[in-house]
Amino acid sequence: MTPEKLLRQIDFIKEIDKLKYIQRKTKLFNSDRYENDAEHSWHLALMAMILFEHADESVDLLKVIKMVLIHDIVEIDAGDTFIYDTQKAHSNTEEERLAANRIFGLLPESQAEDLINIWEEFEAGETQEAKFARAMDRLEPLLQNSSNNGGTWNEPGVNYNKVYAKKSVIKAGANVLWEYAEGLIDDGVKKGVLKKD
Amino acid sequence: MTPEKLLRQIDFIKEIDKLKYIQRKTKLFNSDRYENDAEHSWHLALMAMILFEHADESVDLLKVIKMVLIHDIVEIDAGDTFIYDTQKAHSNTEEERLAANRIFGLLPESQAEDLINIWEEFEAGETQEAKFARAMDRLEPLLQNSSNNGGTWNEPGVNYNKVYAKKSVIKAGANVLWEYAEGLIDDGVKKGVLKKD
Repeated sequence: MTPEKLLRQIDFIKEIDKLKYIQRKTKLFNSDRYENDAEHSWHLALMAMILFEHADESVDLLKVIKMVLIHDIVEIDAGDTFIYDTQKAHSNTEEERLAANRIFGLLPESQAEDLINIWEEFEAGETQEAKFARAMDRLEPLLQNSSNNGGTWNEPGVNYNKVYAKKSVIKAGANVLWEYAEGLIDDGVKKGVLKKD
Repeated sequence: MTPEKLLRQIDFIKEIDKLKYIQRKTKLFNSDRYENDAEHSWHLALMAMILFEHADESVDLLKVIKMVLIHDIVEIDAGDTFIYDTQKAHSNTEEERLAANRIFGLLPESQAEDLINIWEEFEAGETQEAKFARAMDRLEPLLQNSSNNGGTWNEPGVNYNKVYAKKSVIKAGANVLWEYAEGLIDDGVKKGVLKKD
């Protein structure tokens, strides 16, 4: 007899497979192929593993990795919102909270609570771990856009000021990475793929 | 001036994007769409997070997660080998070692050494962490095949004995999960999607 607890864990493991179908706005490096949320989450976890020494304050790496692995799971119900979309809020919407309760709620109760707490900590962006995890989330598409002649910077309504404001989240978690990121943004302006106005 | 160390880390982060193009033999849950190595690695990391309480002995979860996140990176150079392929060895081939040295070697020296060691520990399958990580790697496609009318069990040359032998890796890491896995294999035989001969 399989324990009830394990069956709930397996249900969750099957449900999150859907993250592989959620398409992002950004494309893979030097590519025309859109990235999906599962690939993105994997890449952020690797980036956290490789870059965590650059965090402004020391971070609990396991917690950062958990955050980036689960941060987009709510999009299974709520969908991906383009970061430069001005019509729709980007975090902690009611829709996302309902999604977190439904999807993490498939798990045994204490695990569900743990993951909802980690997701909320990421969304709030106040702890060192959340700040660093959010820095990873902003750095990956910046690297991708830089490799793709601007990528989503070419979308209507996107310009230097908006990109700079969104990317300054990197500064809150890792100054060394922010200096590098600022350079990439400036390069985008110099190359004419990011509008200054 | 960006430090040389960070530039090497960024080179590695760009290089591993290629994992998203490596197609596996198994398909997503209830799906005709093949999985890629990045999606697979993300899913294993989540499974480790959720299931690690079932490991036979307590494991260092961070190490298990690192293992599953990086275990297929060598396939960027060496390609994916079908687990039931009888013509080609599956682990620690010379080709995979060269790949590990080239790809992890993009990183600063001490990080490269760390990741090569973690990959070799996974491949050797002797520590508790490696056993549990390898159990995850065998459990995910079993769940997928079960949801897909047998999936790769329908390929030529695959039968119950071969599946049972390959999947018993799960037993080495987590007996509770093995009991569940055995049930799925037996169900496959009962449903006629896994040949007994």
